[in-house]
Amino acid sequence: MKHDQDFIKRQNRLTVFEMIKNHNPISRAMIAKQTGMSPTTVGRIVGELTEQGYILESEQVSEGLGRKSTLLGMVDASVITIGVELDRHEISVGVVDLQGNLVHSERHDRTVEETPAVTVQRIADVLNGMLNRNIVERKQIVGIGVGLPGIVNNDNGVVVFSVQLGWKNVQLGESLEKLTGLKVNVDNELKVKALAEQLKGSAIGSSRTALLGFGNGVGSALIVEGEIYRGEMNSAGEIGHTTVDPNGTLCECGKAGCLQSYITIPSLLQEANQIAPIQTVEELFAARDTGERWAIHLIDRALTYMAITVNNVVCMYNPDSVIFSGELADKFPDLYEEVKERCMSRFVWEPLQDSFRFVRSELNVAGVMIGSGLLAQTQFFKLD
Amino acid sequence: MKHDQDFIKRQNRLTVFEMIKNHNPISRAMIAKQTGMSPTTVGRIVGELTEQGYILESEQVSEGLGRKSTLLGMVDASVITIGVELDRHEISVGVVDLQGNLVHSERHDRTVEETPAVTVQRIADVLNGMLNRNIVERKQIVGIGVGLPGIVNNDNGVVVFSVQLGWKNVQLGESLEKLTGLKVNVDNELKVKALAEQLKGSAIGSSRTALLGFGNGVGSALIVEGEIYRGEMNSAGEIGHTTVDPNGTLCECGKAGCLQSYITIPSLLQEANQIAPIQTVEELFAARDTGERWAIHLIDRALTYMAITVNNVVCMYNPDSVIFSGELADKFPDLYEEVKERCMSRFVWEPLQDSFRFVRSELNVAGVMIGSGLLAQTQFFKLD
Repeated sequence: MKHDQDFIKRQNRLTVFEMIKNHNPISRAMIAKQTGMSPTTVGRIVGELTEQGYILESEQVSEGLGRKSTLLGMVDASVITIGVELDRHEISVGVVDLQGNLVHSERHDRTVEETPAVTVQRIADVLNGMLNRNIVERKQIVGIGVGLPGIVNNDNGVVVFSVQLGWKNVQLGESLEKLTGLKVNVDNELKVKALAEQLKGSAIGSSRTALLGFGNGVGSALIVEGEIYRGEMNSAGEIGHTTVDPNGTLCECGKAGCLQSYITIPSLLQEANQIAPIQTVEELFAARDTGERWAIHLIDRALTYMAITVNNVVCMYNPDSVIFSGELADKFPDLYEEVKERCMSRFVWEPLQDSFRFVRSELNVAGVMIGSGLLAQTQFFKLD
Repeated sequence: MKHDQDFIKRQNRLTVFEMIKNHNPISRAMIAKQTGMSPTTVGRIVGELTEQGYILESEQVSEGLGRKSTLLGMVDASVITIGVELDRHEISVGVVDLQGNLVHSERHDRTVEETPAVTVQRIADVLNGMLNRNIVERKQIVGIGVGLPGIVNNDNGVVVFSVQLGWKNVQLGESLEKLTGLKVNVDNELKVKALAEQLKGSAIGSSRTALLGFGNGVGSALIVEGEIYRGEMNSAGEIGHTTVDPNGTLCECGKAGCLQSYITIPSLLQEANQIAPIQTVEELFAARDTGERWAIHLIDRALTYMAITVNNVVCMYNPDSVIFSGELADKFPDLYEEVKERCMSRFVWEPLQDSFRFVRSELNVAGVMIGSGLLAQTQFFKLD
């Protein structure tokens, strides 16, 4: 199943690309030798990549017996992807280079009422603005990646369901492709963020990274050796509706005791409002710090469930690193230590306590843009 | 990381092997064409496999312009692996052919007190008995796979920890290799069973299979396109110590509310014994059927947690099939329908309810032997 011809073709192209990217400069013969591919196959792929302007022939070296061999290198500046992050209140657009650096980025406000059509138009406008100001050249851009909260069909770019954007079955990829003429890849924000953290952030060197996001929603993502584990419908890691208390409170989904009921910002605020008129999570934490026992209780319970989440993800995915991220992690830096302490003292199963690094997100707000850009890059070299 | 030379070499060998196995007969040229490998690489691998007696040249066909091409086929009977299942009370040894059929198997009693050294010797004795009776020829056997309950280091064949066998840091693979002179692969029983179910049993055609085992322990395994997802320490899927009730009863591991406390046979019997002297799980179910309310309560709660487990595994792995297996599933066939009904009516998150098939194990007691044999087969063609 994994070895059908089409799959192998795409994989071979990506392999050649990664060989040149990582062993820059390298000869055709060396690529063939190291991969076991035929010189013909290597030659064809190198020809395509050269013609498209992504690689170039640099110096000539002799390889014994007077034969000359040409070394190939990447035209670094030639390949740029656009990484977009969509959120309830913001549209962020970044320019990501071949090495995964965010070389430029812009944030623009967005209203909750904005329709998908308007949002797509605004992404295109931001991109056009960058082109007009010569921040990036049109011919450099090989694709656009978009990360957003919700369940996304990564194959066809349809946003199946996003509570936070209020979208359902939105053909985001197709619309944005029509407007920009560029290949678009749409994905869940935590999945691309986790990818970015493994390739460029807090989980460099990790083979199996689990990222946890605690904010307006709660979710996780698993990256196995540079690849996103998607599952059947790209909704692997949707831990918000795992049951963590069979006798727990009713969730909006109709089940009882779902994780999200104890841990997301909206759930915390809703429960707090039974006692006091609290508008923001900052007010909730401030109330805890002044000793309000209801606030102490709510936050204590949330921390317990965060530690339980770490344990459950560790037992199921057995990762070598777990990344603590999301709006709550970003806004309240002390949470990381508090959750870590709970994990180690009480909530993580002992045989697995030393099996993973527990780290903070390093890329923070840049993570989704970088990850979306990297995803678009990989897809480009696989699919073209 | 995924494209280092050694990895590619092993992968190429397996690819050629699978090409011949699945497109039997096939020519060298066709293998090269379909994989993009060089004729030299294909020729070298085919040469090795022929020399070792695993493939043979069959007929000659013309490929246009009068050129003749030789077709290659598998010598089916030439490759046999031995699949072993180790349990508290039994040693099962099976002969598995290239297609994953269990062509012969034997079960032998085992006492709980038996030391690892004795158990290893007995496996070798059973195998020798088969050789002496000409059930299998020595030269056909390319490896031994062993599946057992517990955490196993699949890289070096060490049983890190098995509560059920009472073993800790046992060098099972090495000992058995010394005694038999054969390559040995040791793994967790649910992982190999899941592999067998995806390749030969209830999950044929599935790309992402999650197997759940409910018995003396509770565990899960994930197979992604024919490959076991292992995680960092081969303990992915160890759901027994996921927390399902933060206010729950204390588990032997020192945490509260672990799944295994509500669902394994020993836990159920222990709790039942607070009320009545119950020795076996059959007695517990009989008590339920005669209307004993404590038995009704215990089994009802276990069913609820089984359904919760299905939900949690589905949310995290997003599989296309979930297999219900284990001693409880085997002994009480009605459980399958009862758990299924609970899953669909109350416990599985609605957006994912139609995303997977919920099926019974088909291979049952043969699953671990077949899976161990298939694992040994794959390892042989990768590593040799």
